[in-house]
Parts: sequence; C-alpha cells; structure tokens
Amino acid sequence: MAAALALAGRGRGQTAPNPNVGCVIVNHGVVIGRGWTQPGGRPHAEAMALEQAGDAARGATAYVTLEPCAHPSQRGPACSQSLIAAGVARVVAATGDPDPRTNGAGFAALRAAGIAVETGMGADAARRAMAGFLTRRALRRPHVTLKLATSLDGCIALVSGASRWITGDAARAHTHLERSRHEMILVGRGTFETDQPRLDVRLAGLEARSPRRALLTRGDPPQGWEGVRDPHAIGTLEDVDHLFVEGGATTASAFVADDLVDRLLLYRAPILIGHGKAALGDIGLERLDDAHGRWRLADTRMLGSDRLEVYERVRENGVSTAGRSS
Amino acid sequence: MAAALALAGRGRGQTAPNPNVGCVIVNHGVVIGRGWTQPGGRPHAEAMALEQAGDAARGATAYVTLEPCAHPSQRGPACSQSLIAAGVARVVAATGDPDPRTNGAGFAALRAAGIAVETGMGADAARRAMAGFLTRRALRRPHVTLKLATSLDGCIALVSGASRWITGDAARAHTHLERSRHEMILVGRGTFETDQPRLDVRLAGLEARSPRRALLTRGDPPQGWEGVRDPHAIGTLEDVDHLFVEGGATTASAFVADDLVDRLLLYRAPILIGHGKAALGDIGLERLDDAHGRWRLADTRMLGSDRLEVYERVRENGVSTAGRSS
Repeated sequence: MAAALALAGRGRGQTAPNPNVGCVIVNHGVVIGRGWTQPGGRPHAEAMALEQAGDAARGATAYVTLEPCAHPSQRGPACSQSLIAAGVARVVAATGDPDPRTNGAGFAALRAAGIAVETGMGADAARRAMAGFLTRRALRRPHVTLKLATSLDGCIALVSGASRWITGDAARAHTHLERSRHEMILVGRGTFETDQPRLDVRLAGLEARSPRRALLTRGDPPQGWEGVRDPHAIGTLEDVDHLFVEGGATTASAFVADDLVDRLLLYRAPILIGHGKAALGDIGLERLDDAHGRWRLADTRMLGSDRLEVYERVRENGVSTAGRSS
Repeated sequence: MAAALALAGRGRGQTAPNPNVGCVIVNHGVVIGRGWTQPGGRPHAEAMALEQAGDAARGATAYVTLEPCAHPSQRGPACSQSLIAAGVARVVAATGDPDPRTNGAGFAALRAAGIAVETGMGADAARRAMAGFLTRRALRRPHVTLKLATSLDGCIALVSGASRWITGDAARAHTHLERSRHEMILVGRGTFETDQPRLDVRLAGLEARSPRRALLTRGDPPQGWEGVRDPHAIGTLEDVDHLFVEGGATTASAFVADDLVDRLLLYRAPILIGHGKAALGDIGLERLDDAHGRWRLADTRMLGSDRLEVYERVRENGVSTAGRSS
C-alpha cells in the first residue's frame, strides 16, 4: 500500500476533477503492475496497472488507494469491472470513494464476483494523498495550502518591503516542487504588483507542470491570469482540486479568516527581523482560547539552514486534508 | 565525560562567579566519586568527588569539565594540588580554564607531578554547560538567554494585550526549569506593570532556586527587584553569569539590537493570531543580508502541542555560548 500511495502522489495536481489514485498488483510476491491516474484523469490507476499485468493478474492481489469506481464512462470501463474481468483474487483498498456513483458500489461489485475485499489499510495516508479530491467532495471547494516564508519572529519582509531573500535555495526549490503538485496558484494584488511573480515551476524536468495562475481581485485579471473575486469563490474554479496560496499577508489573512486553509507550509529562516511586515493581518480572532485546537504539526524538516513545518487544519468532520510534504 | 557534563549542569545558575564544573572519578572501571560545584562556588567539583573517592582515588582517572584550578584560595586548596595529593594517575579535562590564575597552570602542575593529562574530550558540550562562566570571561558580561513565546505567526499577544495563554502547561513548566538555571531574570517596565509577574520557579523541589529579579528601568526598582539602567549595564551585575530575559517586546528588542543575546528560547504554540503584538520591535536591521548567519538551531523538541526551538548566536570569536535545553 505504501508503494501505491507513492504512485498516487505522482498525479497530485494533475487529475482534477478525478482523484489521483495509485495501484500496485502483486502475484506470488512479485509486483506485476503499477499504475497511477494519468494527467487529465484517464486512464485510471487500475487500468494502467492491469494493462501492465496482463494475464498474470489472474489470481493476483490489487492494492489501490481508493475504492475502484463502479461507473463506466465514455472514456473507459468501470475499474471494478476491469478487475473482475482480469480475474483478480483480492483487492485491498485504503479508503472508500465518496463519489455517489461509487460510494460502496465498487466494493459490492467486487464481492459479488467472489473477490476478497479488504479496506482501511493506510487510510489516513490515503486521505492525505488524495486530499484535493476528498476536500472537493466534503467541502465543495479545492484543498487549500497556504505558504508562508518568515523569519523566526514571524516577519515576511522588512518595513521597506524587502523580502529577497528570507529563506534559502533549498526552501525555495521545495516551494517550486509544491507548486507542481497543485492545479492553481493564487496571490493577491499587492504581491502581484510588488513582486511581479512568475509563479512557475523552475525545477529540471518539472517545467511543464507549472500550475494555472490566479489573482485575488474584483477587477479584470491580467493576461495569463485567472481572477478570483473573493476567497469563497474558489469553490467554483473548474478542474482545481489543489490550490496553493502564496500571499501576501492580506490574501493569506483573508483565507485564514474564512477558515479556508487546510494545510499550512511554514518555511522559517534562522533570522530575526523585528519591526517588519507581519505574516498575517487581521484574521478576526477575538479570544486566545478560540485560536487553540485548530492546527496540528504534520511534518517538519530542515531545508538547508531553514526549517519547514507543515501544519494541518484539524476539522471535526474528520476530513484530514493536510499532507506530508513532498 | 558525559556524566561529568551532566553533573556540571546541576550547578548552573548557582555558582557565579565560579564556573559550574562537573567531575567523575573512575578506578578499575568503577565510579568512585562524583562532584559538582556547590551553590556559591565551593566546594569545587573535584574536591567533592575526591572526598567521596577517599583512598580509592590512588591510581584513578578523574574526568572534569574544566581544567582544575591552579590557585589556592581562602576557601580551599587548588584542585590541581588536591588531585596530585590524592594520587590520581590520569586527568581528562574537557576544556581549559581561561581564568588567568589557572589558564594552563593547572595542567602544567598535574603533568609536573607525573599525571597523564588529556584535554578536548567533549569540549563543545563543556563550553555550553559552562556558558555563563566562559561568556563572563570572554565578553565581560553574563550569558544571556532570551525567551519568546509566540504563535506560529510570531505574535506574543493579541492587540488587546491578552497573552494568557499562548503556550501550554508543559512549555510553561519548561520555562520555570530554565529560570532555575539562571542567577537572574529580567523584564521590562511594560511587562512588569501589565503582568505583575512573579518570575519564580514553581516546580516541586526547585522552589528555592528562584533567581533574583531585575527590571530594565532608569528609575528606582520596586522592592524585591534590582534595577538595570540599560542592556549594557548587565556587565556590572555581581554574581550573575546567566541572565534570563523574559520580555516584553521592547526589552527583547533592546537586547537583540545591542547583540547581547547568546541563546534564544523560542516556544511556539500551533496557533495563528494575526494582527497581534509582534515578538520584536525595531532591532536596527536595515538589510536582509545582515540578518543571516547569526543564529544556529541547537535543539528542538515538542512540549505538549507546543514546539521549543533553541537557537544559539554564532560568534566569530568562537565562544559557543548557547546550550541544549534542560
């Protein structure tokens, strides 16, 4: 299942509105097929893995990160039917598919065909790996990651506005990798005008994975950019299941204030600035008690001399929408 | 030597102006004596360990965190002479004593008496364990630890001033433990008037180790407090080798601006405040480049849901004045 989860990560940011699924098929202890949802959403992970496995899939076990789909489409057959047709003996799925066209029907079809079905293995990791799809289903909007790059005292710039650079090369490269895992990046008007950011992925081999760019603005967006009128409008963005918010403070605060941030990427340089620009403005907090219990540290690591922390929003509806960092 | 260093830690904050030394005496693989500098500075670690060892010290090895002193005083004989008299065969010392009355003379006396002397084992750890004494010798002032307790976005309070509580019980208990390892705690006028802090050690068994209290003020200090007119005046404080600065932002900024902070204890709660009170005010930084290369992460750990980071000031004169946390 860990291998299947790793494969699922390959499609992250490339498959909306389809889930980025991973699948590994094993027979007699040998991996005979590996698949992941391809860019645009097809082929599905199971179809790719079954094609590799061929006849060897008969009697094999398929490990998938999500319940195999139960609904055929114009673009291909239902994965549950494909697994049955291939003669797979056992399916191990990390978590169920909330899509109403599947939602248990995939498992039911497999069982009805005499296939052993097990669920729940790696469920938390799977929910993180496919956070975009699951957040879209649960909250009707993309999964939102907010990136902040600060000094130890929480500043994102000097009062002069100077912010190049707070973090080092490794942290900035990591940000580019994160960009490649999102369908869209969003900044506010201030950042757009001050920094003229390119917001592309400048990593060898990943240049083609630069996300669409959005500007938080009530006016017309500049050429090459899409406009988002207010944070809640992200629910209407087509084919965006992962949104990467890169600032500045006003935009970040607007998303935090509206509780639209699921995952916080905090890059911190070992410097003190003092009397600089704060990472956040008003987020509507009135009592300290209300600030607690909302964020949980999910991952931390060094990136050169900088430190990355990944926090996930703790939500009562059980949607674990954060993810370990790439 | 690790055992000797641990013993050295017991005296931290209790021995100024003497160094807090640790000593372990081993014969035939058995620990026969353990000592650490006692409150007020006497007996010395070696004297305590030698007394425990008694006649068994003959032919033994003494592990000490600092070069044994060469100068007798009214309060006791020189430790190098005591080691010679006890018939110790070998002395392993972590680092030399910069006190001009010793500064190599201790080692020379031991060697002249036919004792094998080795130095350098655990030198970095020893310099951290005895940071107060060594900072006083190198920089003519106490070793200064600045404590900050912030949200993830670097706030120490809401705009209303509310700061109880940002961090949780475990972090606050850790702060009390840190207090017990300093001779003096210092706050500014604002913190004194707003919070009326007791600044004592409220940990079972350590109540008697509450440090002296100082107020950064140009006026008269209140009863029970000592006055410090400006940050540079800390060099004149008697019997203070470890100073713990607890805020608020104005006081913290004054110490940072004057480059008087050797160790930064950063307690961070997993909360966002936004539009609150910043941890630091103006520290005189004009260019981002100047902020880099000054701080190095020395330790990090979770304290409940809060995270503690310990940063040490990187100084070119090689004084490693930070320390792992207790």
